[in-house]
Amino acid sequence: MSSTVAILGAGGFLGTNLALRLAGTVGELRCFGRRQAFPTAWQGLNWTRGEVSGAEVRQVLAGCDTVIHLASTSTPATADRRIADDAQSNVIDTLELLDQCVELGVGRIVFISSGGTVYGPCDQIPTPESTPTNPITAYGVAKLAIEKYLAVYRHQHGLDYRILRVANPFGPYQTAYKGQGVIAAVMASALHDTSLQIWGDGGVVRDYVYVNDVVEAIIKTIGHTGDSRVFNIGSGIGHDVLQVVRAVEKLSGKTLQLEFRPARPVDVPVSILDSSLATRELGWRCATSFEAGLTITLEWARAFEAKQACQL
Amino acid sequence: MSSTVAILGAGGFLGTNLALRLAGTVGELRCFGRRQAFPTAWQGLNWTRGEVSGAEVRQVLAGCDTVIHLASTSTPATADRRIADDAQSNVIDTLELLDQCVELGVGRIVFISSGGTVYGPCDQIPTPESTPTNPITAYGVAKLAIEKYLAVYRHQHGLDYRILRVANPFGPYQTAYKGQGVIAAVMASALHDTSLQIWGDGGVVRDYVYVNDVVEAIIKTIGHTGDSRVFNIGSGIGHDVLQVVRAVEKLSGKTLQLEFRPARPVDVPVSILDSSLATRELGWRCATSFEAGLTITLEWARAFEAKQACQL
Repeated sequence: MSSTVAILGAGGFLGTNLALRLAGTVGELRCFGRRQAFPTAWQGLNWTRGEVSGAEVRQVLAGCDTVIHLASTSTPATADRRIADDAQSNVIDTLELLDQCVELGVGRIVFISSGGTVYGPCDQIPTPESTPTNPITAYGVAKLAIEKYLAVYRHQHGLDYRILRVANPFGPYQTAYKGQGVIAAVMASALHDTSLQIWGDGGVVRDYVYVNDVVEAIIKTIGHTGDSRVFNIGSGIGHDVLQVVRAVEKLSGKTLQLEFRPARPVDVPVSILDSSLATRELGWRCATSFEAGLTITLEWARAFEAKQACQL
Repeated sequence: MSSTVAILGAGGFLGTNLALRLAGTVGELRCFGRRQAFPTAWQGLNWTRGEVSGAEVRQVLAGCDTVIHLASTSTPATADRRIADDAQSNVIDTLELLDQCVELGVGRIVFISSGGTVYGPCDQIPTPESTPTNPITAYGVAKLAIEKYLAVYRHQHGLDYRILRVANPFGPYQTAYKGQGVIAAVMASALHDTSLQIWGDGGVVRDYVYVNDVVEAIIKTIGHTGDSRVFNIGSGIGHDVLQVVRAVEKLSGKTLQLEFRPARPVDVPVSILDSSLATRELGWRCATSFEAGLTITLEWARAFEAKQACQL
């Protein structure tokens, strides 16, 4: 691909993986974000530091064919604490961004939405894209509102878009520190021999999808020409928290100490996505098994911890 | 009803009709808004002037059983001009309002959404509430986002709500000056002998519902105890713009001069609501025929014009 691609919110878990994979495969890659969670991964990559709402983003957008929007200021657990602030910094800031994209002639936005929260509790499992969207968290509503605004910008301004409703991604460069990433949290407990907090009885079921598969899905949307614009990206397989714990225990040889806490109202009991539309339209499928993904991720986490220890 | 009810955005078309109908039938009625479009209608009613985002709203909310939220800063035609500003002044301000409602122990919010814009273009006509919501205007997305946030506030904070997706209301106290209200605009042309601008070929079909019927629907939601929380409120009958013109011409004895303008991207071709859920759950039905509603509205408009002329 000879196109110019920008990644907004590039410094985080998904962004770091995406940038490393895209580097050298597109005409020009521009990475933009508040901070690099893993600065050593970024050597040689084009990086601009800034906020989506700030002035610096303009030069990143100018002349872009595709803008991949991963920037988010919140997690499902934090968004509900101050809903208005969350909407301000995610929805409103994205609208200002879209205005600039229209003005600067950006061709396409690829927006990473949340397959785990936009549907809310639903009867149809695995859940296809046509399922009614009734989020129970502000995080899910903000993602959904941005999805709906994207359709308005396309309708009125011709700004094309693709939306990926990603399930629960996991893999290298995910950390447990932001309250995100069950697998990262479980692995951190195993590696640090610390107890693991579990919200509820450990029966909350999620669709864990390996980050490389998510990255491949994003890449497939860059040049997609079909009529569908909203795609689920998940493995289609559910694991509850205790299954994740047992799998990590088996791989690590550790026995984790579990601390059960009250269930959280933000957690739907089961979230498993039906991604068959992405298979049909994008030619995408989840290629990495849960077990294979866990093995690679644990290897990465061990190496990362070892490197951190060397630097101390 | 001995409850305390507040109307936010009370000074406009719907609010004026609702306040006049509710006065004396509830324990305490508090009306709140930026301005009274028809000051003479408000004698003897409890009125507080202010913005939903301002400090004055707090005293209006305190101790309320039900808050009827009609306040809006935009119309389907204006919202798209500055989408971020529209979202700011409608969505964000409503979230700040909901935070105050939670804090002050308000029992229920009744939110007036937009049956004509939240669905977008759809195949199922008349359209039931279960139809996918794909707005093509920022106005529709903002209404939908508020709907979805209301569900989150209920889930997390127990703030109950009802949502009425109202079709195209018409009747007394609607004016043609804000770019809203096809019927008001057609009547103004007939009474002032001015030409009528029509966007497109006059074939855009809308579901016109007489304002008294909308007011009755709102009242029925105040004490509703069923599980459904989102209701369409429309007549279930469609009229295109040229049919409205012919009907007003017949009633007024005038022949209107029509100016056809290019169609607007914000207008879906057909919007007709299926309100059978409101009939089943609220015991509501549209009681006023299109023709009867038009007759009363034209009488009101004539009397209003005559009064205005006397005051000149």
